[in-house]
Amino acid sequence: MNNRNYENQIKTPFAILLCTAILASTAGAQPTGNLKIDHSIISSEIADNAVLLRERALLDNLSVDIVESLTTEVGPRRIGTDGDKRVIEWSQAKFRELGFDRVWTEEVILDRGWTRGEARAEILSPYPHNIVMTALGYSVGTEGDLVGELVEFKSLEDLEAVPEGDSLKGKIAFVSYSMSDFVPEPGQSEFAGYGLGTRARGRGHVVAAKRGAEAIIIRSVGTDNNRYAHTGSGYGYVDDVKKIPAAAVSAPDAILIQNMMKRGEPLTMKMNLTSEITGPEKSANIIGEITGREGSDNYLVLAAHVDSWDEGTGAIDDGAGVASMMAAAALIGRMEQQPRRSIRVVLFAGEEIGFYGVNVYMEQHEDDIGEHILGAEVDGGGGRIHTLTSGVGEQSVPVVHEMYKLIAPLGIAWGDSNDARGASDISVLGNAGMPVLDFSQNSNDYFDYHHTPNDTFDKIVPEDMRFLTAAYATIFYMAAEMDIDFRQ
Amino acid sequence: MNNRNYENQIKTPFAILLCTAILASTAGAQPTGNLKIDHSIISSEIADNAVLLRERALLDNLSVDIVESLTTEVGPRRIGTDGDKRVIEWSQAKFRELGFDRVWTEEVILDRGWTRGEARAEILSPYPHNIVMTALGYSVGTEGDLVGELVEFKSLEDLEAVPEGDSLKGKIAFVSYSMSDFVPEPGQSEFAGYGLGTRARGRGHVVAAKRGAEAIIIRSVGTDNNRYAHTGSGYGYVDDVKKIPAAAVSAPDAILIQNMMKRGEPLTMKMNLTSEITGPEKSANIIGEITGREGSDNYLVLAAHVDSWDEGTGAIDDGAGVASMMAAAALIGRMEQQPRRSIRVVLFAGEEIGFYGVNVYMEQHEDDIGEHILGAEVDGGGGRIHTLTSGVGEQSVPVVHEMYKLIAPLGIAWGDSNDARGASDISVLGNAGMPVLDFSQNSNDYFDYHHTPNDTFDKIVPEDMRFLTAAYATIFYMAAEMDIDFRQ
Repeated sequence: MNNRNYENQIKTPFAILLCTAILASTAGAQPTGNLKIDHSIISSEIADNAVLLRERALLDNLSVDIVESLTTEVGPRRIGTDGDKRVIEWSQAKFRELGFDRVWTEEVILDRGWTRGEARAEILSPYPHNIVMTALGYSVGTEGDLVGELVEFKSLEDLEAVPEGDSLKGKIAFVSYSMSDFVPEPGQSEFAGYGLGTRARGRGHVVAAKRGAEAIIIRSVGTDNNRYAHTGSGYGYVDDVKKIPAAAVSAPDAILIQNMMKRGEPLTMKMNLTSEITGPEKSANIIGEITGREGSDNYLVLAAHVDSWDEGTGAIDDGAGVASMMAAAALIGRMEQQPRRSIRVVLFAGEEIGFYGVNVYMEQHEDDIGEHILGAEVDGGGGRIHTLTSGVGEQSVPVVHEMYKLIAPLGIAWGDSNDARGASDISVLGNAGMPVLDFSQNSNDYFDYHHTPNDTFDKIVPEDMRFLTAAYATIFYMAAEMDIDFRQ
Repeated sequence: MNNRNYENQIKTPFAILLCTAILASTAGAQPTGNLKIDHSIISSEIADNAVLLRERALLDNLSVDIVESLTTEVGPRRIGTDGDKRVIEWSQAKFRELGFDRVWTEEVILDRGWTRGEARAEILSPYPHNIVMTALGYSVGTEGDLVGELVEFKSLEDLEAVPEGDSLKGKIAFVSYSMSDFVPEPGQSEFAGYGLGTRARGRGHVVAAKRGAEAIIIRSVGTDNNRYAHTGSGYGYVDDVKKIPAAAVSAPDAILIQNMMKRGEPLTMKMNLTSEITGPEKSANIIGEITGREGSDNYLVLAAHVDSWDEGTGAIDDGAGVASMMAAAALIGRMEQQPRRSIRVVLFAGEEIGFYGVNVYMEQHEDDIGEHILGAEVDGGGGRIHTLTSGVGEQSVPVVHEMYKLIAPLGIAWGDSNDARGASDISVLGNAGMPVLDFSQNSNDYFDYHHTPNDTFDKIVPEDMRFLTAAYATIFYMAAEMDIDFRQ
């Protein structure tokens, strides 16, 4: 998951979280309330098969096995790296192993590559300390040791308030905004705190450079107090503005620095980043399809992003998405009858650095975008779904609501707004008019691990992954079988 | 806290933990049950003053401020390092600032020093991965890259079962024992799982070397699944056995390695440690005393260890001990009347590498050990006390029990066994006959952070530190005022 689309998400109602928790050990509980299926909308046969598939999926460890395979056999896979090349091979082999009958790649050219290198930092005075730091994605290096006094700004806005010119000459700007201390407004999600944090991560290096700073460091954008720095991408450098190094420090290191500053003495930091922007790289979107029994010109799209950041093994971001989408489609493919419509799983390249893969996909599929009849993406970890929200034509809303009744027993609420725009990459297709569904997830610990070395397989909760996969499999099975134009 | 004394601790009764939790926000709640003070044992004046001191301490942030000062102004302070030299200065200055009227150091000569250097490791095949590793204390380095096949042993005992000789020639032994998976026997503490884990950490390098291994790695001894390796000390090398490098990998890395192994292919690891054993170093025990109004030849000992491991800032191990003991004594010293007996705070050097400082202290104080009339140590983090257990002469038990009643309102239970031997360093004095008290602490997350970079100030819970300090101040105030020989 990268910077975008998180400032305005809806806050999860507490009752829903509670309900999901209560249902935690009651997979397959009977629907309650007005959840009787209207068989004039969904036939008995389709509804019965959907329940069968849901119950099978809840008992099937396939999604967990896939994320274990991905994180063990491939691991980190930042776009353009060797891991990225390995995951392109792994994905195709895995699609074939799972019974997808059409598997292919679509090339994505990356205008620039990047080497992370090493990040070392220490406070020289008033008290010597090593500092845990990591380069932000596509930062330039420091070209040797960079020494400067730290100047704290509570937010990007505070940094912007400093006059442009050389007021920060010789200094290192330090933006100390803390996502952990963010208090959502009514109606806002905790994710909004992530959006605020990514402002300095995304543009801080340009704003600081315009004020003469030698470098910028930010407090990691995350919710944990582990001593890891969270990496993430900026929006790139700007012509005619000096390219300065940009890095994140861990929350405990940010607190340490602030505690030193309270003593009133100037803080001198030495930092050394050996990061380097390199030449163009090739990558690819990887696509697996289970061809429908009525041909392949009309398909449902299940998406995730195949790239990850490079310090963990990308289990929650977005191994969980890759695995649940592959598994949901594979489980539909294993039903007694081939699905009516095709199921296409698209693993997008380069989401983390700004929707590279999906933008190429949009260009390449300009002519057949109308054949993408419904899409969704998982890019919020391996947690359970708490709310299903549609983003479809008005006539289709009652149909999706009827389909929803089949996953309501999983403790999932109905998001009654029909304003879904699609998660992560799939929002690009959603904005271009493709009908979408948003399966909002419980992501309590997501920003504890996100973009750190700590994003590893052991953070996956197997039962949650099975619930997640079952929800997608159930809904997309019905969408494949029913003769509905979700645009209408 | 180092390896010893943790295999046989008593399991905390759940009811006690619950009780402490309920009392969390009721500092100064009225005693309940049969907690009426017998004023033939404790005078009204002493009891009233003890309550006053307890209530003051619960509201006083002094211990938190001290651990903030220590972790910010000094930070890591492994014995023999620059941080150790800084903490010797810091401790003396802090004692004086807090009003201790006698402050001195007692030299501790260390026969060997150690440079941690860097630890890098990667799996070369079957799947390339970086591995998070840290050298165990006083390990030799690898002298360049060391490449070998990993051979897993579930425990030190399994490694010992391999015949001595060259059966592990060319191999790296991997002991995968997991403290997280340890299930205590009835009556055993979770700490017993730590004791089991330290077997391989303490002696694994000798056992593996006798079987021809080139190096040994262990799964970190800890309860977390963060991607940190937990360092810690071994018991040293043995004459006539090859000195091989010894390191720990993080829990997620151990799981990754085990998952690779399940696939049946040999695992090749490359590791590079630049650790180095160096020459002798000087350190010191640091002592601060508040002289009693009846002279200084009769004193109570509050102890902690001043050294820490070198990757975190030593907040919980044992900054919390240093701070709570300094603060408890200082708060007693701030009472309206100077205490009758002297209060001596001893900050021991080199606990982490095997009770270096306390052993020197014992030699230096052979003649006046009888003047140490009661002692205790904090070396279990900054958590609250759940049980007070005495280790005193039989006649003194009712007196300690009466004193206990004054801290019972803090949610503390009475350990009815009189078999305390003293925590950590102070057990050495306890074993030599000094009466001791054990203040057992809630340590739920202690082994999550212990010996990792993650042991930082933000892990301190201020309210818990105030409770901890209040319990010690209250008990030791009474012990200072009362005319009791705790040996009898």
